[in-house]
Amino acid sequence: MTSFALIEAAAERLAGHARRTPLLSSPFLDEIAGRPVFVKPECLQHTGSFKFRGAWNAVSALRPDGVIAFSSGNHAQGVALAARMHGIPAVIVMPADAPAIKIDNTRALGAEVVLYDRATEDRDAIGARLAAERGLTLIKPFDMAEVIAGQGTTGLEIAEQAAEAGVTEGEVLVPCGGGGLTAGIALALDARAPGLRVRTAEPEGFDDVARALAAGVVQRNARLSGSICDAIVTPAPGDLTWPVIRRLCGAGHVVSDAEALRAMALAHDRLKIVLEPGGAVALAAALFRPGSGPVIAVASGGNVDRAMMARALST
Amino acid sequence: MTSFALIEAAAERLAGHARRTPLLSSPFLDEIAGRPVFVKPECLQHTGSFKFRGAWNAVSALRPDGVIAFSSGNHAQGVALAARMHGIPAVIVMPADAPAIKIDNTRALGAEVVLYDRATEDRDAIGARLAAERGLTLIKPFDMAEVIAGQGTTGLEIAEQAAEAGVTEGEVLVPCGGGGLTAGIALALDARAPGLRVRTAEPEGFDDVARALAAGVVQRNARLSGSICDAIVTPAPGDLTWPVIRRLCGAGHVVSDAEALRAMALAHDRLKIVLEPGGAVALAAALFRPGSGPVIAVASGGNVDRAMMARALST
Repeated sequence: MTSFALIEAAAERLAGHARRTPLLSSPFLDEIAGRPVFVKPECLQHTGSFKFRGAWNAVSALRPDGVIAFSSGNHAQGVALAARMHGIPAVIVMPADAPAIKIDNTRALGAEVVLYDRATEDRDAIGARLAAERGLTLIKPFDMAEVIAGQGTTGLEIAEQAAEAGVTEGEVLVPCGGGGLTAGIALALDARAPGLRVRTAEPEGFDDVARALAAGVVQRNARLSGSICDAIVTPAPGDLTWPVIRRLCGAGHVVSDAEALRAMALAHDRLKIVLEPGGAVALAAALFRPGSGPVIAVASGGNVDRAMMARALST
Repeated sequence: MTSFALIEAAAERLAGHARRTPLLSSPFLDEIAGRPVFVKPECLQHTGSFKFRGAWNAVSALRPDGVIAFSSGNHAQGVALAARMHGIPAVIVMPADAPAIKIDNTRALGAEVVLYDRATEDRDAIGARLAAERGLTLIKPFDMAEVIAGQGTTGLEIAEQAAEAGVTEGEVLVPCGGGGLTAGIALALDARAPGLRVRTAEPEGFDDVARALAAGVVQRNARLSGSICDAIVTPAPGDLTWPVIRRLCGAGHVVSDAEALRAMALAHDRLKIVLEPGGAVALAAALFRPGSGPVIAVASGGNVDRAMMARALST
């Protein structure tokens, strides 16, 4: 189980290695939302997403001789860089339909990439086999205490930066796939900024967590491909993340692909940051869903192909 | 004259109001440049460029009843927001051919915008007349001690952040129009990080400062329009900025529009930040000009139309 103490330990390990991303805002976004909007741009984190935090913490804490990971891409890059910075080998098992930039970047960061078919093959089985054969430690994308704790450092920073901005009550919207970032932030805020309530954001058709929060029990997604928000498409929340999310989070937001693209374009125009569709769903919910009081949207990643960004800018 | 003491005073005025932008990097950019590259993303500053720093400092220091400014756009937005945050009126004299987003944003920030023809009218005369008629204080875009001092706070941050990254010797490349940012950073580094040498970056055809540095005397640009790098097209360096630039800066870099666009695309891909062409010329020089040792490129602004960013992404 991930405790707040694990998040504090993660923050010590990340100091000087992960970036402390700023808290951004724009009067133009406040006007659209009708309330103060703040954005935590984890696209500016090493490797372009928050995933570096969890990967760095897990590798630092576990001190493995080598690591293996499976991921739609952002976790892959985070693990690859964290491994390289620790001087150990990394094998990354990736779906063959992941964006080309994510596959290329993972290889360029020194990792060995093993591709699999998302529709017909079981990535867990592939990962387990390779881990056993080569003596590698599996770094799970979300359902692992050290990974959740690393992502939770985002929440520690939000607590501090929100207080500096005079915000002690409000909503914190988090793009949610398997729930590692959501659970980590929720635990950090529960301890450090209890007036800030976490709510999840997911794409239409892949809203397992919103449905689970409404039903009170885990729900699964019917499909696992076909969303432009590939970074946050996972079968269901994890065994470690779901109990935290259920206990601490408010009702989940669901946004359309078109809304995610509009949020990307507005982040470009007003904040000068590059978001991928999955990284923009919380900002989309902050801008296009009614609400009152300050809202902090986590912009979780920016690993987007140029063509997808051009599509967002032409909407 | 702008002294280092004025920059230190500016830093105190800006604390808690301007953003402390991070220092970014990417192993992919290091590989392209063949040396360690760091980027100071002032596109993430309030209003999307470093200009907010100088505007805030001038308004805070001079405490005017109202302000007037003329600018190709970024200074306009900086002055407009600084005035609004101080509760005073702002009149902005802008060229009629400035990007639409800059005119719209300046108006949306509460300023009154007066347009003029860059080819046939004299903005200084228009500004002086309006200032006299309405009792407004002119906030010059670069040739004003308080403005240079405000921009110089960027250099204080670079000195600290470079030291944290272990960089005490190297080059700092700065997009240069009238030279306010360049002179401010050069003064700050001369005092706080004398191993970091400033070099200017300008677009082809508008390289007055590079030519002036080579000749030892002020040079002027033959044209004042026709560059995609509109933010840094000015007739010549200023009376206050040129002596500082001449004394402290190394030879100037000149880059093509195509190189600025490629730098914008790489900043999008690798740093997840949005740059305008004029804000990308220093990064272009860092990536595409030979050099050894660490290089820090100031990315001075990100106020770009969606169409121009789409153009950069399609190159």
